[in-house]
Order: sequence, then structure tokens, then C-alpha cells
Amino acid sequence: MTVEILCVGTELLLGNIVNTNAAYLAEKCASLGLSCYYQSVVGDNEGRLKEAISTAMGRSDVVILSGGLGPTEDDLTKETAAAVMGKKLVMDEESKDAITAYFKKRGIQATDNNWKQALVPEGALVLTNHNGTAPGIIMRKDNTHVVLLPGPPGELKPMFEENVVPYLEALEPGIIYSQTVKICGVGESKAETMLKDLIDTQTNPTIATYAKPGEVHIRVTAKADNEKEAKKLNKPVIKELKSRFGYDIYTTEEDVTLEKAVVDLMLANELSFTCAESCTGGMLSARLINVPGASECYKCGFITYSNKAKRKVLGVKKPTLQKYGAVSEQVAEEMANGAANAYKADMAIAITGIAGPDGGSKEKPVGLVYIACYMKGKVTVQKFQFMGNREKIRESAVTSALNLMRKCILEYFSKVTFGKK
Amino acid sequence: MTVEILCVGTELLLGNIVNTNAAYLAEKCASLGLSCYYQSVVGDNEGRLKEAISTAMGRSDVVILSGGLGPTEDDLTKETAAAVMGKKLVMDEESKDAITAYFKKRGIQATDNNWKQALVPEGALVLTNHNGTAPGIIMRKDNTHVVLLPGPPGELKPMFEENVVPYLEALEPGIIYSQTVKICGVGESKAETMLKDLIDTQTNPTIATYAKPGEVHIRVTAKADNEKEAKKLNKPVIKELKSRFGYDIYTTEEDVTLEKAVVDLMLANELSFTCAESCTGGMLSARLINVPGASECYKCGFITYSNKAKRKVLGVKKPTLQKYGAVSEQVAEEMANGAANAYKADMAIAITGIAGPDGGSKEKPVGLVYIACYMKGKVTVQKFQFMGNREKIRESAVTSALNLMRKCILEYFSKVTFGKK
Repeated sequence: MTVEILCVGTELLLGNIVNTNAAYLAEKCASLGLSCYYQSVVGDNEGRLKEAISTAMGRSDVVILSGGLGPTEDDLTKETAAAVMGKKLVMDEESKDAITAYFKKRGIQATDNNWKQALVPEGALVLTNHNGTAPGIIMRKDNTHVVLLPGPPGELKPMFEENVVPYLEALEPGIIYSQTVKICGVGESKAETMLKDLIDTQTNPTIATYAKPGEVHIRVTAKADNEKEAKKLNKPVIKELKSRFGYDIYTTEEDVTLEKAVVDLMLANELSFTCAESCTGGMLSARLINVPGASECYKCGFITYSNKAKRKVLGVKKPTLQKYGAVSEQVAEEMANGAANAYKADMAIAITGIAGPDGGSKEKPVGLVYIACYMKGKVTVQKFQFMGNREKIRESAVTSALNLMRKCILEYFSKVTFGKK
Repeated sequence: MTVEILCVGTELLLGNIVNTNAAYLAEKCASLGLSCYYQSVVGDNEGRLKEAISTAMGRSDVVILSGGLGPTEDDLTKETAAAVMGKKLVMDEESKDAITAYFKKRGIQATDNNWKQALVPEGALVLTNHNGTAPGIIMRKDNTHVVLLPGPPGELKPMFEENVVPYLEALEPGIIYSQTVKICGVGESKAETMLKDLIDTQTNPTIATYAKPGEVHIRVTAKADNEKEAKKLNKPVIKELKSRFGYDIYTTEEDVTLEKAVVDLMLANELSFTCAESCTGGMLSARLINVPGASECYKCGFITYSNKAKRKVLGVKKPTLQKYGAVSEQVAEEMANGAANAYKADMAIAITGIAGPDGGSKEKPVGLVYIACYMKGKVTVQKFQFMGNREKIRESAVTSALNLMRKCILEYFSKVTFGKK
């Protein structure tokens, strides 16, 4: 069964707001096993809205509209959808009572145009709005279902969960269940090449890759009667992915980010952590500290942007700075040792690099970054050459630093050598 | 002239990502004076993509597509758009060289599918991608213009600014010219109330407000024959806004962010700066250091997340921590003094608060944040109660800290009292 999402609103066409409703509805429909091939946005214009609804009804089984149910004159969605479906509008007494109660509760007077919201297409299913005044509507014509939802996410979401999900579930038995394998340290092209044979022969489950900054996510999606069956179908594929990507996989959990995976590893191994950031200037710390519970391992951070700060705060030696420069393997190593010593931590990360746009040279171009990881006395330094603008270089450095932390912890505690399975 | 936005990607149809590209492109096109009546999303499917491009070309003058330019087999946008326009694909030597250089710089081997990205439609305008491997494309057929952009926002945005804006500007004589007045420390509702009479009577230029995290941007947009004329139309309105909002305006420059305004103020007054971050954990530093040239004033930062770090690194007194708790006016003040002393800086910011989700109490609820600003011996402390989740609270704290820095510099050097004009 196919679904199509049609969002109505001039503020979307002007780019004043981001269309989070479309993403929400799409994700929910996918998890219900509905296939979505089209999303559209049109403004509050009768002619274009009429055409968009007709087109959608002609090619999809379910059409979900959001927005344009408000009390003002330029809210046209209900009137237009009813006209396309050949239905008259009638006063719905229950909606009228609900609107009266809503205004009474707030101690304000309903204006005349509020009653417009209690008009519903003949024979429609009316969905109560517990968070606003516009009721939702479900209409059916032959085998096509049209769902009208209010635009504000705080009204749309609870109404969808409560009323639309059961309606759609009843239309099509079976579910779609996705699991994500998250990889860091392998590019998207390389990952796709490593997966090509699996992707070429996929049926159920399907496999798709998504590039995220510095990461690749592989989504494995099964169609089955229930979640248990779907998990069973996904299992051998996830096992195969684990064997192909080994320790480059940092999680198979939907809600685990790279920084959370690293914090979890530190907590599990009771590691205390400090860091010394130069070009990333606090971004690594900010990502780690955004993980609730990070305070158990993250002890202290130093942002040593200047050479003087590197010497004064971290004890980097003047001759090292003079001989090799601030962006060098040697300085990265001394920074990591210095950060660890300044706080007697088990583990420390140091990042020094050239984020640009200025400061690059032929030998040390913009994007050159050294990352050092101190782990209980031993320091590992990696050299990177990142691309893009200042922000992108700094983001790449942070992701690479997190991945280096992960590798160093895994190597230290599980005695594996990274990259080998 | 009309524009239509067509985003390509299965991950959008599945709701895995929110379509921020559509909002970005819509806002930019609106500011260029183009009318947008339709936005659509389709997946990486040749038949549906072909149909969507044909439909869009039939009803809009400019069609902007994003996504589906990657190296993999399911990236079809370029091939399909070229087919719809009746153009052959040819190898673009310049793009090939750029891709070679991109991979060489990273010291990795290009895979065979990477060369697919150097194929371009005959006669097309090729847009260099400085932040990735997929070049952008502009094609023209009669009076219809089709623009293909890469999907990652970090590639799409700079390419749009650099190449597409001038192209679109050249298509339509007369210009739309916007200037933005950026305000921090005044809520959107209050700003709207202060502007109501101006908005109600606006014609040319128009005035619109946009809420940004912790900020309000007022956009003044004139339609005129040329930039000079447009600026002349905007001038009296901007003057009026300056008189109404006074020092709450931090800039009237399009490309000046709040952090850049603060860094510029520090540089202009030759101030050296340090900071001590607790709950924001590096986010303030990261924003400041993202401003090129920040190293001239930003000297050193301390992320003192634990009480021990506050004592050891900043010299916060144990009795102060015990008596008032880590989240208190007194500790914020000692942190700011400590950060300034640790590096003999002219100015220091300290942030301590409860970002949640845990750690709140009745007296000190989640969202309570103290921010202290040390300025040449004098410390100003402000108390805030922020709302929202952990990330939002931390972001609000950073924006408020930047605004406090701005106020303290202005008060110190211009002897103005903040809030008075």
C-alpha cells in the first residue's frame, strides 16, 4: 500500500520553517509498512491545492495532508479536499462542543471564524484535537483514503499516534522494521563496494547506506508480520555486516551516537579522561559532554589555542614548538601527555591542526591535523588531511578523534589490533 | 519568475532526515525575488524522478534539484535530468582532475564509481564543489533552467551562494535586496510588538522577523533596479530599527554572527580572553574559535566539569563549593576570576549550570545557569532559567554568554549603560 504526504503552507514555501512534519509522517508510515514515493508542499492556494490533491489521489492509496485547517480565510485544506472528493461540509456538533470547551477553559471568547473549524465533510471520520481547535479528518472514496491533520507538530503528532496509526494498521497487516549498523572510519564509496554483492541480491530485508559526517550508516529493513519475525529476517544480514566491517562498527543500536559509544566504553572500563584541544577549540568536549553521564569519565579539558597556552597549561616544551611547529606529531604527543599529567587521567586526547582559512603553507596545508591519544602511559598519534571549510575540517577532526579514542580503548582492553577482524 | 524545489532521496521519503535543504533553498529563492509554488521529494527511482522533473519543468521557470549526485549506482539525478532535457553525458576533464586531486590529497585511492561524478551533460555549466566530489550542474532548455546540487548541506550551501545566486540574479532584471538587523536579548513576541506599526504599513521595503536560537533577525527587503537604489530604500527603515532596538542590535551585516561580533569587539579593544565552561563543556569556545582570527584574542579555555577541576584548575575555594554548590553566583564569580588569573587575561567568561536531564532539584531546577563575566578586575554575574532539553539549555547558555560578553565590552569602553539608548 502506498502513502503520499502533502504539506500545505506558505511559510514552508518561503523557507520560514523547516518541514519536520513531513519527516515525522514519513518515518511513521515507513514503520507501518507503507511505501512513500512522493512528498509535496503547496501553498494556501485553491487551484494548486486542488490539483495537488487530485494528483496524489490518482497515484497513492493514502494521502496525508497537514496544515491549512486553521480558522482564517486562507486556510483552505478541508474545503478543497472535500470539494475534490465531492463531499458537502456539515456542522459537527461534537467538534463545536469541543471548541466551546477549549475556549471556555482558557477564559477567552471564540471568534466567529472559529466555528468554521467545526464544519466537516459529510460521512467523514472526525479526529478530536486535544491540543488545539482544528479537528482532524479521515475521508474515504473507493479505495483511496485522505487524512487531514493540523499543521502545528504539537497537535499533529498526538493525533497521528492516537487516531491515524490504528486506522492505517487496520488497512494493511504486517510491519516494516529497520535496524542500523553504524560505521566510522570507512568512506561511503568503500562501504558500498564492500556491500555491492549484498545490495545487488537484496530482497527482504533490504540494505541501504547513508553517509553522515565522518560516518556511514547501513540500514537493514525487513517486511514481516510482526517485529519478532522481522528481527529474525534481519539477523543473518547484520551478522554478515559485522563480519565484513568488524571493529569499524561502533554500534548497532538506533539511539547510540559515536560520542555515546565512546563515553560508554570509557565508563565500562572505568577510565578518567582529559583533553587538550587546539584547532577544534572545544568541539570535542562539547560533543562528549552532550552525552548524559559524561561527567563520570570526562574530568577536565584544556583549550590551548595559542603556543603560550600549550606551554603554560600543558607543559609543551619550547624547543619542540620551535623545531617542529605547533602542528606536528611531536607537539600533539606532548599535548596529550601534558593533558593527562595535568589531571592524572587514564586517557587524554590532543588535537592540533590548521583549520584555515589562513595559516596554511605548502608543507603544512589547511586541513592538516594531528591527533594524539594517551592511554595509560602510551601515546598513539595519527596524521590527517581533511578537506572543506574551517567548520568541516574541525568537525572531521572531532569525529576522527572520537574514533581514535574508540580504537585505543578497544586495543588496550581487548588486545585486538584495529582493522583486523 | 517562478522556481520549484525538487529534493531527491530515499532517506527523505523514509523520514530518516529532515529536509533542511528545501527550507534553505526556499528562503534564498524568496530573498532573490523568485516565487516558489511547489516543493517535492521523490526517491532514487528513474521513472518517478523523470516524471517529477518533467512536471516541474512544465510549470516553473527554474527547477532546483538537490541530492542523488553521489558516486553510487542508485544516484540517478544527473543521468535522469540529462535524459529529460535530451542531453548526452560527456566526461568533464576539469571535474576529473578535481576528483583526482581530492583523493590524492587524502592519500586514498578513487574507486571506479567515483569517475561517474565527472560525467556532465553536454553544454552544461559545471559548478566546482570545494567541499566534496560531486560537481553541481546548471542546464538550460529554451527558457527553463535546471540546477542540480549535491545533497549534503555542507556542499549545497556554499555552491548555491557562490555559483547559483549570481546565475539566478542575472536571469531577472531588477533585484531584491535584503539587509538583516540582528538582535540578541529581546524575544520574538516583544520584537514583533515593537515593530507592529512598521509591519502593518510596509510596502517597499518589507519587514519580516525570523526567530533564531536566542536571537531575532529582522529582514528588510527592497525591490529596486539596482543595489544602490535598494539600499537607499532600506536606509530610513534600518535607521528607525536602530533607534528602536539600540544596543540590542549586535550587527546589521549579513555575514556577521553573534560570535563574530564579539570577537570583533575584543580585537578592536585589544582584549585577551579566557573562559571556564562547566555545563556548556566547550560549546562557547567552539563557537568563538570558529571565527577566523579568534586566536588573536582567545588565549586559553578550561573545561571544568567536575568540582575537583574547578578547584584544581581555577582555584575555586572548597568552602564556596560546599556552602553555595557548584551552580551558584559565588562559584560562577570565582570561576571567572580563576580563569582570568590562570592566564592573566583582560576578560574571562565562566558558565556553570544544570543542563539536565538529571541533577535538578526544587531550588535548583534543570535549566538554571549562572554566567559570570570578568572584565579588567570587575565581575558581572547573571542568573538564567532556560527551558528545553539538555542541548537546547546548553545552546541558550552559550548565546547568553556571548551577549553578556558583548554588553560588558560595550559598557566598559563606551561607558554606556546597557539597555539605554
